[in-house]
Amino acid sequence: MTKVWDVFELKFKGCTDGNPFTDYTITAEFENKNEIKQVSGFYDGDGIYKVRFMPSFEGEYKYQVWGSFSSAIYTGAFTVESASSHGPVKVNGVHFEYADKTPYYSIGTTCYGWANQQGKTRMETVESLKNSAFNKIRFCVFPKHYDYNYRNPVCFPYEGTPVDNSGINKFNFFKFNEKSEGNSWDFSVFNVEYFKILDKSIEELMELGIEADLILFHPYDRWGFSNMPKWANELYLKYVVARFSAYRNVWWSLANEYDLCRHKTEEDWESYADIIQKNDVYNRLISNHNCVKLYDFSKPWVTHCSIQRQGGDLELDNIGKWIKLYQKPVVIDEMCYEGNIEHYWGNISGEEMLRRMWKTAVSGAYPGHSECFLGDNIWWSHGGVLHGESYKRLGFLHEIMQKCGNLHCTGYMTASSEDESINIQYFGEHRPSYKVFNFGVDRYEVEIIDTWNMEIDRKGVFSGTFKLELPGREYCAVRWEKV
Amino acid sequence: MTKVWDVFELKFKGCTDGNPFTDYTITAEFENKNEIKQVSGFYDGDGIYKVRFMPSFEGEYKYQVWGSFSSAIYTGAFTVESASSHGPVKVNGVHFEYADKTPYYSIGTTCYGWANQQGKTRMETVESLKNSAFNKIRFCVFPKHYDYNYRNPVCFPYEGTPVDNSGINKFNFFKFNEKSEGNSWDFSVFNVEYFKILDKSIEELMELGIEADLILFHPYDRWGFSNMPKWANELYLKYVVARFSAYRNVWWSLANEYDLCRHKTEEDWESYADIIQKNDVYNRLISNHNCVKLYDFSKPWVTHCSIQRQGGDLELDNIGKWIKLYQKPVVIDEMCYEGNIEHYWGNISGEEMLRRMWKTAVSGAYPGHSECFLGDNIWWSHGGVLHGESYKRLGFLHEIMQKCGNLHCTGYMTASSEDESINIQYFGEHRPSYKVFNFGVDRYEVEIIDTWNMEIDRKGVFSGTFKLELPGREYCAVRWEKV
Repeated sequence: MTKVWDVFELKFKGCTDGNPFTDYTITAEFENKNEIKQVSGFYDGDGIYKVRFMPSFEGEYKYQVWGSFSSAIYTGAFTVESASSHGPVKVNGVHFEYADKTPYYSIGTTCYGWANQQGKTRMETVESLKNSAFNKIRFCVFPKHYDYNYRNPVCFPYEGTPVDNSGINKFNFFKFNEKSEGNSWDFSVFNVEYFKILDKSIEELMELGIEADLILFHPYDRWGFSNMPKWANELYLKYVVARFSAYRNVWWSLANEYDLCRHKTEEDWESYADIIQKNDVYNRLISNHNCVKLYDFSKPWVTHCSIQRQGGDLELDNIGKWIKLYQKPVVIDEMCYEGNIEHYWGNISGEEMLRRMWKTAVSGAYPGHSECFLGDNIWWSHGGVLHGESYKRLGFLHEIMQKCGNLHCTGYMTASSEDESINIQYFGEHRPSYKVFNFGVDRYEVEIIDTWNMEIDRKGVFSGTFKLELPGREYCAVRWEKV
Repeated sequence: MTKVWDVFELKFKGCTDGNPFTDYTITAEFENKNEIKQVSGFYDGDGIYKVRFMPSFEGEYKYQVWGSFSSAIYTGAFTVESASSHGPVKVNGVHFEYADKTPYYSIGTTCYGWANQQGKTRMETVESLKNSAFNKIRFCVFPKHYDYNYRNPVCFPYEGTPVDNSGINKFNFFKFNEKSEGNSWDFSVFNVEYFKILDKSIEELMELGIEADLILFHPYDRWGFSNMPKWANELYLKYVVARFSAYRNVWWSLANEYDLCRHKTEEDWESYADIIQKNDVYNRLISNHNCVKLYDFSKPWVTHCSIQRQGGDLELDNIGKWIKLYQKPVVIDEMCYEGNIEHYWGNISGEEMLRRMWKTAVSGAYPGHSECFLGDNIWWSHGGVLHGESYKRLGFLHEIMQKCGNLHCTGYMTASSEDESINIQYFGEHRPSYKVFNFGVDRYEVEIIDTWNMEIDRKGVFSGTFKLELPGREYCAVRWEKV
C-alpha cells in the first residue's frame, strides 16, 4: 500500500514507433479531497511508459492518465495510508523542516559520481552512508570528468558512443573538458539503464533518510553533456523532473560551480529554473552552487543558498550576513574536504573539516563534508569507503544540533534558539581557559562540549555572573539552556 | 662620535619661569653639504632643554640653536662618521628597506605597555626580545587600562594624580574606560621621567635592531588621555615628535584601533597626521591601525597599511587585494595572539599563530605576533617572558623571507620574487601528499620546508613536469629557485 510521501508508480504499454522519448506525451492527474496534481510521465524503454506521483495526503486518490502514447485513457483509484516517513524537506524561515514539521538539520556529504560507479563501489557507498550521520548527499546526474575521474561510468545517459578515454589524464584534462569532439550521442534518446541506476540510488537514499541533492549540470565533462543544444537541455530537464520529482528526498541543484560552466549564461540558468518550476509540482528545494561567485539567491525560485566557501569574501564568517541578506536557509555545501590530494580544496585535516562544519552550524547554517584520500576510489567522487576522522564525529554534531533547535547567530560563533532559552558558543581554533558569563536572574544549565572527543561535561546550574573553567583545548563549545 | 643614522643630542640650560613646556620655543638647524634640517627641541625638566637630530650623511655638520628658551644663540659643528647600522626603515614599493638599501622583512610583536612596567619586567622584555627574531614591536606611549591591565604604570605622562585604581576590574571596566572622572592632570606639564623611560626603551630597541612602532593614541584608558582637549593633543604630538623622531627605529602608529576611539573623528586623525608630517623632518613610517574598519590607507601621508585581521572582509585572504588597492606595504599587526585567555583574539595555538604569520608572509605582507598566556605578566601587554611555541619558529620564517626576497603573491598562498626566479608555495592547513610542477625548460632547485619543525628537505634540481612527493602534514611549503 502506498503511504503519504511515498512514490506511487503506474506503468503502461505504449507506442514505440519513432522516438518514444520525444514523439509522444503522457500526462496524469491525481486527485483526492485535499489536492489535485497534474504530472508528466516518461518513457522507460521496452515500450513502457511510467507515471510517478507522490501523494501528500491520506485517503482515496483517483487518477486519469492520457496522452498520445496510447489511444486509451486510463483511470483508477488507490488508497494512501498514513506516513511512515517525515516527508520531503521544506523551508521553514531560514531553516528546514520535514513536511511533518520535524526539524531537519542538514549534515551533507558529496560523492559526485557515486551512482554511476561499478556495483561493488555503489554498494559500499550505501553501506558507508548507512553507518554515517549524513542526511544529505550531493551528486551529479551526468558523469564526471576530472582528476582521479578518467574512468568511464558504468553506462551513459544517452544512446551513442563516448570519446575514447585511453590516454586521457590530468595533463590533457583541458583538451577534453567541456568539449564534445570524439563523442557521438543522440541527445533525444536517453539510455534508460543509466536513469534506472539513478532511480535505485535515490530510492536507497530515501530508505536511509538521506536527501538526494541532485546536480543537474556541471562543467567537469568530456562527453559534451555540458554543451548540449538548448532543445536537448530542455528535454533532459523535463525527463529528469518527470522521472525523479516524485521522490520525496530529491533536491535540485542546477549546477555544481555554475560560474565555471562556460557554455551557460545567467539567462540559461534562469530558463532551467523556469522549466523545473513549471514541471515540478512538488516544489522541491532548488538552488545553484557557485565556485567563486555566489548565484543571486534573491531570485524568487531559489529556496535556499547553496554555497561553496572560499577565502576572502566567501569565508564562513559571512554566513550571518548571507542569512540576513537572503532570508533563506544557508547550506555550505563545500568548505574544502578532508584528505591528502594535491588540490587545496581536498586536503584539510579531520580537525579542520570538523571545525568548519561546527562553525557553520553555530552560525545558523548547514554544513557539507567530503573526503579526498588518495586511492582507487575517492569518496568525494566515487563514494566507496570513508577513511577520514571527521565523519565519525558528525553524529555527535547532529545530536547537538537537534538539542539546540533552529539557531540564529548572536555573536562571533555564538548562537541561540529562537526563544533564546538555548545558547551555544563554539570556540573552534580558539582555546580559552575560562569564560565569564552573566546570566542575570535567569538560571541556566551549563555544559562544556568537546566536539572532537565527543564528550559533554555537565557543569550544573548557574545564574548571575560566574567564571567557567574551560579545557583550554581547541574545538570546544559551551551550551547553556534555561531551566 | 656620532654615526650616520645615530642620534646627535644637544643640551642647554634655559628658562624655567612659568611653564617651560609651553611658554618657550627651542629650534635648531643642522646643515651639512647634503642636507639642511630644522627641528624643534623639547624641555626635559630641571631647566634642561634638549635638541635631538639624526644625521643622514657622513662628514661635517654645523648647527645653530635659537628660541625664547634662552637669550643666547648657540652654534657648533660636529663630524658624522660612517654608519654602523642599516638606518631607518623606508618604503620600497610594496615592501620595506633600510636606508642603506638592505631589505627589511618585518616580523613584529606587540607588548602594548612594556615600557611602563616595573624595571624587572622591562629588563625581562629586553632580554626576551634579544633572544627572539622580532625586528618590530608595537607599544603605546600612554599607559593601558584593560583586562589584566588594572595596575598603574610605574609613573604617568603628566603631572597630577590618577583615579584611584583599587576596586577597578573587568566588571566595571566600561565605567572607567575613556572617561576622565577622578583624575587630576595638568596636560600642559609632562612628567619627563615617564618620557625618559620611553627614550630608554626606544634606545634599547634600537640597539637590538628592533623597530619601535609607537602607538600615539588608544581607547583603553581610564585616565582621560584618550579624551584630552584639542590643544593638549597637539602639544602632546609635538612633544613626542620633538623627543622621539630622531630615533631611526621610530614608526608612528596614530592609534591602536582608531575606530574604537569614540572621542576622535576622522578629522582628528587627519589633523594628527598633519601635525606629525609638519614636525617630523625624517618622514618616519606612519599609519593608523583598525579594529573592524580599515583606515583609508590611500591618504597620501599613510606610508603603509597597518591592519588588524578580522574574519570576513578582513581575512588574510584579502592581503593581495589590499596590496593592489593601496600600492603600499601591508603589515598585519594583529591576527589574534597565541595564548589561553578568554578573549577570542588571545587564545589561538602556536601552530595557528605561526600559520597565520606564514600565510601573511607568503601573501607578500608582514606579520605581527603576540602572546596572551594567563599569568602575572602577559607578553601582549606587559612584556616579560615568552611562553608560547610560535616565537621560537620566527627566526626560521625570517631566514626564509630573506632567502625569498621581496615577494608578490601569484596565487593562493603562492608568491614569487620580483624576477620570478624564486618562488614559494605555502600549504598552511592543507596537507597535499604530492604536487605536480611544470617548470618547462627552466631548471629549479626545489626544497620542501616544514615550517613547524623548521626543517628544509633539499630535493635537488628539476625541470619539465614532475611529481614532488610531500610530507602530507600541515604547515609545509615548497620553495623553488632558478639555477
